[in-house]
Parts: sequence; structure tokens; C-alpha cells
Amino acid sequence: MEATVQTGDPGGDVLGASAAKVMILEQPATAGASSAAAPCVRAVVQQCMSAQLMVQPSTPEDQPQFVEIQRGIIIYLCFLRGATKAHVEKLAKMIQGIRLSEGDSGKLTSVIDLPGDVMIIPQATLGGTPKGKVMQYHKNIAKDEGMRLYSEFVSIFQKTYERNDKCLSAGTIVRYGTYGNRQVFSCQTNGPFTHLMEI
Amino acid sequence: MEATVQTGDPGGDVLGASAAKVMILEQPATAGASSAAAPCVRAVVQQCMSAQLMVQPSTPEDQPQFVEIQRGIIIYLCFLRGATKAHVEKLAKMIQGIRLSEGDSGKLTSVIDLPGDVMIIPQATLGGTPKGKVMQYHKNIAKDEGMRLYSEFVSIFQKTYERNDKCLSAGTIVRYGTYGNRQVFSCQTNGPFTHLMEI
Repeated sequence: MEATVQTGDPGGDVLGASAAKVMILEQPATAGASSAAAPCVRAVVQQCMSAQLMVQPSTPEDQPQFVEIQRGIIIYLCFLRGATKAHVEKLAKMIQGIRLSEGDSGKLTSVIDLPGDVMIIPQATLGGTPKGKVMQYHKNIAKDEGMRLYSEFVSIFQKTYERNDKCLSAGTIVRYGTYGNRQVFSCQTNGPFTHLMEI
Repeated sequence: MEATVQTGDPGGDVLGASAAKVMILEQPATAGASSAAAPCVRAVVQQCMSAQLMVQPSTPEDQPQFVEIQRGIIIYLCFLRGATKAHVEKLAKMIQGIRLSEGDSGKLTSVIDLPGDVMIIPQATLGGTPKGKVMQYHKNIAKDEGMRLYSEFVSIFQKTYERNDKCLSAGTIVRYGTYGNRQVFSCQTNGPFTHLMEI
């Protein structure tokens, strides 16, 4: 049995660099996969009118750097043990195609058909499980694997947006946070329509 | 077998009054309760530096009305079939006590100990299940039951805040959205630390 002890943050800086360390328990690597119902990728999706995300904190020399989107969706993304490229592709396609966004007529439409912008935010805390007074993150995937899958997810969205006529002519964009960074963030919405998506 | 057909929105205006109708399928009322693992209340919790929520849309006579909080947490809340007052009490106590918020020292603390403000937002869309290109909401609780449980949840937080010395002396507040309304909303955060909580 492979047992992994992680004393730092397992999902790529779970709470941000300067936040307190979280409690990580020793846990077999196969625990998350033992139940067929256990998700491998978890996303929280919200619609927004605009959103801003810091991708580079300020330094003594430079101002902080932000990316920004207009109307579209925000995707908070977390990878759990057992997550593969196949899970990532399935979830990305699902979120691209499902009707979560309110079009101009009030009718629900997919973000691609809206067409709308996309902000992808790594969010390892979404893998947490409450245990007494603390959250535990032993179901989260190892940081290097999470980074790889996160890049994969972002890449799928970028490629779709680069090749979709509707997105190209509307000039819609994909923006994303840095894996492991603190996600300094603000958003404005006419109704977040928050959805949980798990694969 | 009790079967409920709902052609409107089952969880109290799932997507807001002016949004498109969502697809609701005929479903036995006991479906959600048949599995021990099926959650009855689902919450997404984020920490924020400030948040603003519209609680009254503009009218020809009046400007829209907003409620606002400063540093604390945002709770998106959804009730599913089988949810009871006991579930609501358990989840409220859990969220009050668990260490999700970053204190001044960077150490994680509960929202009560922070002490921080609380914004409670009804969010029936969180009960959705993807089915092809649409979300289905047949696991959501009936609107009248959801409203009752939502009021219960808000009331627990209000009472705790009215009686807690730390909250009283710091002047922290509880604010909440109107069940069934469109949740026009904005927030600012130094890292949302998004958590999923299910009971």
C-alpha cells in the first residue's frame, strides 16, 4: 500500500503562500478511488458580468498584475486523487457545452454560444473534507500532477476559443490564474447561478 | 409513490425571475433520500474582504437596495429533498465553527473567532445535475420548504451573532439575500478559499 504523508499543501498551495499550513493526514493513495462515486475533478462554475484576478503580486519594483474578463463564466477547479487527462477533457467539454449562461433574451445558453469569456481559477481548497474544526485535504492530488492537469484544462479552453468562429468574431477570451498562487480576485454578477460539476 | 412534476423552478426561482425556465423531470420524492450518501443541504463557502448583494431591484419610484458586508464569509446555500431543520442546524454550526478564514496573523480561524461578517445567499442552482446539454433540478426541495429552511439557517446565524461577545464588540454582521430573488452580487477577496460543505 502506498501511503503518502504530505506536510505542506497537497494540491499546489491549498490556501495560498502566506496562509497557515493545513492539516494533512496520512492516507493511502487509493482511498479516493475506492468508491465509484468519488469525484476526480471538482468544479464550481458561476456566471459573471466581469471578473478580475491577480496573476502576479506586487514586488518592490513592480505593480501587481491582473487579468480581467467581461461577461462569461468563472470556473473554480480542483483535482482529486485519481484524476486523469480523460477526466479533464470530459469536464472541459461538459462546461463548454452545457447551458449555464443567461443570453440576451434571458434564455440559457452555453458559454461558447453566448459567446462569453472564461476565467479559470485553481482552487485546491475545493477538495477539502470537514473533520472537526479543520478541513483536511488528503483527497487532493499531488502538486505536480495537479499543475499538469490544470494546464491541460486551460489548454483545451484556449484551443476551443481559438478555433470557434463565434468566439473569434466576438473576441471572447480565456484567462486563468497561476497554479499555487493566492487568488486575489473580484467579480460582479447579475446572478452567479452557482453550479457544482464533478467528474 | 409520490411523484412530483414541477414545471417552474423547484427550489424557489432557481435561476431568477427573468431567466429561462429550466427542465424539470418527473421524479419520485424519495429519490434523493434513497442513497445514504446523497446530501440534503449543499453550501459553497468563500472568504471575502467585502461583498454586496441586491435585495430589492429598482422600481420606477425607487433605486435598487443592497446589503453589504466587510471581511468575512459568503455562504451559497441550496436545500435538496430530504433536508430537515436538523440538517440546517448541523450545517450552520459546522460553518460557524470550522477554520476557513485567514486571520490577521495568517493563521486559519473560524468566522466567529475572526470575527467576521457573513453573507448568506440562496442558490438553488447548486442542486443541479448535468444531463446532456442542460442542468436538471429534480433533487431540489419544494420552494415553500426551502424558504422555511433558509429562514431557519439565517436565524441561527443571527442569534449566534447577537449573543457572541466577540461578534458584539467587533460589530460584525449577518446579511442575507431574499429567497427566490435574482442574486445581483459583487465581491472582493484576497483569496476565496472556496469550500464545498454538504450535510
